[in-house]
Amino acid sequence: MKLYEKLATKLEEQIRSGIFLPGDRIPSVRQTSQQHQLSIKTVLHAYLLLESKGVVQSRPKSGYFVHPECVTGQTPAHELRAAKPIAVSAQVDVSRLVLSTLRSIHNDAIPLGSPYPDPSLFPVQKIDAYGATIGRRNAPWGAADELPPGNPELIRQIAKRYAENGQAVDPNEIIVTIGATEAINLCLQAVAKPGDTIAVESPTFYAMLHAIERMGLRAIEVPTHAKKGIDLVALARIFKQERVAACMVMPNFQNPLGFRMSETNMQRLVDLSARHAVPLIESAVYNELYFGDLRPTSLKALDKHGLVLHCSSFSKSLTTGHHIGWAIPGRFRDQVEKLKFLNTLTTPSIAQKAIAEYLNHERYEHHLRRLRKTYEQNANLMRTTIERYFPEGTRTSHPMGGYVLWVELPPQVDSLTLYERALERQITLGPGYMFSTSNAYGNCIRLNYSYAWSTAIENALITLGELTAHLQHAQEPRRRIP
Amino acid sequence: MKLYEKLATKLEEQIRSGIFLPGDRIPSVRQTSQQHQLSIKTVLHAYLLLESKGVVQSRPKSGYFVHPECVTGQTPAHELRAAKPIAVSAQVDVSRLVLSTLRSIHNDAIPLGSPYPDPSLFPVQKIDAYGATIGRRNAPWGAADELPPGNPELIRQIAKRYAENGQAVDPNEIIVTIGATEAINLCLQAVAKPGDTIAVESPTFYAMLHAIERMGLRAIEVPTHAKKGIDLVALARIFKQERVAACMVMPNFQNPLGFRMSETNMQRLVDLSARHAVPLIESAVYNELYFGDLRPTSLKALDKHGLVLHCSSFSKSLTTGHHIGWAIPGRFRDQVEKLKFLNTLTTPSIAQKAIAEYLNHERYEHHLRRLRKTYEQNANLMRTTIERYFPEGTRTSHPMGGYVLWVELPPQVDSLTLYERALERQITLGPGYMFSTSNAYGNCIRLNYSYAWSTAIENALITLGELTAHLQHAQEPRRRIP
Repeated sequence: MKLYEKLATKLEEQIRSGIFLPGDRIPSVRQTSQQHQLSIKTVLHAYLLLESKGVVQSRPKSGYFVHPECVTGQTPAHELRAAKPIAVSAQVDVSRLVLSTLRSIHNDAIPLGSPYPDPSLFPVQKIDAYGATIGRRNAPWGAADELPPGNPELIRQIAKRYAENGQAVDPNEIIVTIGATEAINLCLQAVAKPGDTIAVESPTFYAMLHAIERMGLRAIEVPTHAKKGIDLVALARIFKQERVAACMVMPNFQNPLGFRMSETNMQRLVDLSARHAVPLIESAVYNELYFGDLRPTSLKALDKHGLVLHCSSFSKSLTTGHHIGWAIPGRFRDQVEKLKFLNTLTTPSIAQKAIAEYLNHERYEHHLRRLRKTYEQNANLMRTTIERYFPEGTRTSHPMGGYVLWVELPPQVDSLTLYERALERQITLGPGYMFSTSNAYGNCIRLNYSYAWSTAIENALITLGELTAHLQHAQEPRRRIP
Repeated sequence: MKLYEKLATKLEEQIRSGIFLPGDRIPSVRQTSQQHQLSIKTVLHAYLLLESKGVVQSRPKSGYFVHPECVTGQTPAHELRAAKPIAVSAQVDVSRLVLSTLRSIHNDAIPLGSPYPDPSLFPVQKIDAYGATIGRRNAPWGAADELPPGNPELIRQIAKRYAENGQAVDPNEIIVTIGATEAINLCLQAVAKPGDTIAVESPTFYAMLHAIERMGLRAIEVPTHAKKGIDLVALARIFKQERVAACMVMPNFQNPLGFRMSETNMQRLVDLSARHAVPLIESAVYNELYFGDLRPTSLKALDKHGLVLHCSSFSKSLTTGHHIGWAIPGRFRDQVEKLKFLNTLTTPSIAQKAIAEYLNHERYEHHLRRLRKTYEQNANLMRTTIERYFPEGTRTSHPMGGYVLWVELPPQVDSLTLYERALERQITLGPGYMFSTSNAYGNCIRLNYSYAWSTAIENALITLGELTAHLQHAQEPRRRIP
């Protein structure tokens, strides 16, 4: 545990014990710094952490106070605990764990740990049929068609799709990439240079951490509410305190929490980024997978300054096998196009053209409607099953879209140990360690509910519940990422 | 012109004029430095340049002497002039020019400027047919199959192909990538960090410069002989003089010069790299396209220290549309695998499997034999046509494999001006500026001879010859890269 985490724990214990009451002013940063012989920075981080957990609140020019609604008892059941600690400007190295987790997802295992959607719900054969036709009439000198920014017809179809979703996008701003992974990488490289610090949600989708790790940058994890998204007050303070080269977020159906930021908060985030001239890298890969009738907007749609670099792909909604994504990088368009050319030269043309043909001739919206309905049903089934079979103290997220559930297990349970035990029973899961540079989510797991609901999946969840209960009482020590 | 280039020109004029005779000792570096009021480094670079041009030679502990075979008259006709100046540790930014050149290659233009092979000679339909079959039996949970290092069956087929070519390769060392472009990028990233200097051939394939540009590194261009390859004496001196993080070469059928390094020189290069612990990044994309009966070896095959990072792909020999390449990175294998995961996560599975099926069931070697024969014939036809129709002072390379020809035009002719004039007539070409960070190859062009020989191509060459003759007498000033 880091110094500031220790301090925060100590202060929180004091508050919870009743030394300070809701609304009480707590000692100033300077006082606490002197009293505990800690640096101002450490104390500030501790206070920020307490604020993010809803324990204290700051009032301009007055100092810090115990939050009026600070609960001194237990967190209500079936509610995720509030936002987690920030990891301060940490070196990033999660890819090894993520890779070994993904490798565990083979055909004979229950793919609860998979980040991929069930392809059996996707029109794979239709797209492949278009691909085969295109292959047969393969133009001999058509290679230049694949050069950045990408196949013109696919770009037109992508822009059309945004228009159908009520968002105006300039087709000239779109750069086709090898999935959203490359889009995110290139966007980050366009705005950051080695040594920079990048703000991310906490927990965050590991693709963000990978992009940071790829460039050897530092991550600062911002408390993120399980239902509201990134803590804008904390983020504003970070923007004031240090130079942040970019902020990477997933405002809709965040992986792993599944929240949907309100349009008001999305607008605030865009304004905040504009005020501090910090580019926002937005992953929108789940935007088509919303529950209910209200189509989500995007940071991109609210941005007037070209500071949002919007990334998405077809891999979560149409085809997993083709790895076609895109970036809409605002004022950084030319840099991203150049980096795309340098990184992978071109994007395979048959895949681009096949998807363009599908979008042009088939009923994408119809496919999506079915997909959304299935995912929403599966999310409810999985939550209910977990509530029934997992031990007390387990909490689950309430996803508003996408296909992953975040499960907070009792604090004694280590997700890596659970992962290993589950794997022995041919069940995969996503250990919480993948979603942070800290060990803050060691007792959390991510589960995939895109696969058709079945007895096999229900039984896998029951087994996971039993394993969790066992680990809860085994008192094995919590682990750290190796 | 840089200081060292000016000095070299001056000294060469002195030597050519007869002040110094072949075998004469020329003034020491220190003397020349004092005499011309230039730094030791500048004089050393000038001497290195003169050495690379065959004007002087150095003798250990004795100094520099006029080369015994130094010709004082004109260079013999139809021989490429010797290696070109080194550009010293330059910032790299050639991608804009390369991208705009590649964009000019559309279906209605004669693709002499294309870097791609004519796909009509490739078994594209067979591979697509395998792809379609694989698409239909798409395994629902098979996504993990594509994770780095790549599809196991494709990796096995790649290793088998090396074995057929007489080279033992450990399948566990192979990492599948998005074409050789990604392989080269990842290999460079595995061994270099921002600020490092990378040694490359001069002229060099622009993919090398792109990889350097992508990471914001510096390039030092090493004189490279049109028939023998990189100047090992110059390279050894550079290794002694400064810290070089890697050396990037293309020992077989280099793009653009087409030479084939002798096995002796390849072994020397490998030994030199081992002595200085400088990793060698080897592009072997044309290795299957040799002329004559002798299969080429590779640096990889001669390496005993794991210092060679070998990169290749199927894009030049089997299919341009699938972008499947691979790296065999020696002792840097794990870093490259991790970077692959971070850069593009996975490589599309259908493309990997389709190529694996082709290699397993079809006659790859038979296809290649036909390809090699066609390319060798085309190379001769193109050289003969250029000798007939281009003005005096034009020289061409003698490619030993691959499908590109390097043409040195009379020194007055600017290749970018020629490129623009040619484009007006629907003819593309590769301007020499793409192959260096300096303007040393402003009067050179690269031409693609992979396309079926035709009257259209012959006429295009005749037109290029006329345009060249016109520019030679127009006395337009040489240009610099914008």
